[in-house]
Amino acid sequence: MRVIVPFDARDPKTRLAPVLDESERRGFARAMLDDVLDAVRAAGHQPELLATAPIDCEPPVRVDSRALTPAVNAVLADRTGPTGIVMADLALLAPAAIDRLCRPDDGLVIAPGIGGGTNALVVRDPEFRVDYHGTSYRDHCRQAQSRGTPLATVDSFRLAADVDEPVDLVEVLLHGGDRSSAWLADAGFELVGSEDRTIARRQD
Amino acid sequence: MRVIVPFDARDPKTRLAPVLDESERRGFARAMLDDVLDAVRAAGHQPELLATAPIDCEPPVRVDSRALTPAVNAVLADRTGPTGIVMADLALLAPAAIDRLCRPDDGLVIAPGIGGGTNALVVRDPEFRVDYHGTSYRDHCRQAQSRGTPLATVDSFRLAADVDEPVDLVEVLLHGGDRSSAWLADAGFELVGSEDRTIARRQD
Repeated sequence: MRVIVPFDARDPKTRLAPVLDESERRGFARAMLDDVLDAVRAAGHQPELLATAPIDCEPPVRVDSRALTPAVNAVLADRTGPTGIVMADLALLAPAAIDRLCRPDDGLVIAPGIGGGTNALVVRDPEFRVDYHGTSYRDHCRQAQSRGTPLATVDSFRLAADVDEPVDLVEVLLHGGDRSSAWLADAGFELVGSEDRTIARRQD
Repeated sequence: MRVIVPFDARDPKTRLAPVLDESERRGFARAMLDDVLDAVRAAGHQPELLATAPIDCEPPVRVDSRALTPAVNAVLADRTGPTGIVMADLALLAPAAIDRLCRPDDGLVIAPGIGGGTNALVVRDPEFRVDYHGTSYRDHCRQAQSRGTPLATVDSFRLAADVDEPVDLVEVLLHGGDRSSAWLADAGFELVGSEDRTIARRQD
């Protein structure tokens, strides 16, 4: 299956600014992207980048400087056949999770993110369009239901755990792909326990 | 399979104090517990409560006022056969997730929680003991590896999403079991979108 991976090639992961400077955010975002591309390929699918600016990488790249929603919808309008859309910051992704996303043959297969977002989709309904604004998981489900499109939800922590904020780095250190976990370790991040929770702290 | 559900019957969910008073925390904790018990039964397993104080409910109750780790280890020391241990605040739990936890026949099956905790285990190794302090997912995996115990990890958002803090209520409103999501709705909680994220806000 063709799997589109949208990627902000200009100013990625701004909510990690409290712990990573701009150059580091680019490097870490690229490491997460490469883990996602590896997982998609290892599951036997064909990744394609949908990037906001030109980027040097192995898979085909479609450049679209618009916001995420119109850029993805332009791909959906052009497509033939089932199309996966998988976010580039799913640093915990593994081939088995991609397999569970791509295996059902429902009109819409959706993986919710923590907090109500949509982290991954497989679209077979030719009229379905995305809207990533707001509580998009609920809105995408409602769209499928109102159109009578068969809907499947994938229950996966690896698909649910996107990496947006410093607190999310714990998951990358514990469960992340080779490149993104190594990137964090090289940058000095380590797990530190406290009474209530484990945090990812950067060594001084 | 016998599935132990530890439950704090005295002062549950203290980290929800910013949004729920003590009586409400008891009510909501009980709704989540009942959803967990329903999911365990619907998956064909036998729940047993491990409660810090006597509690009125249908499944058998073992009362142990000690902290979570020694109380669970006392159960493990007494047991015969495979034993599941599933936290009582997994409000998103569904029978399919319990099935994925209980199906593998490895010596230890583990479901990580968001933030490095251990939300569910199936223990077949008679010498395995829990330690819920700190980054317990990593520590439990290491214990199994050091003992040569075959280890399986379950990739499930429904098993990963425990409900500790106000931010976690979003997941209950979106994906929670019938009782816990209805409890929150009755208490006036609703989803409100903002630019970066969706939050659960209580109506005035």
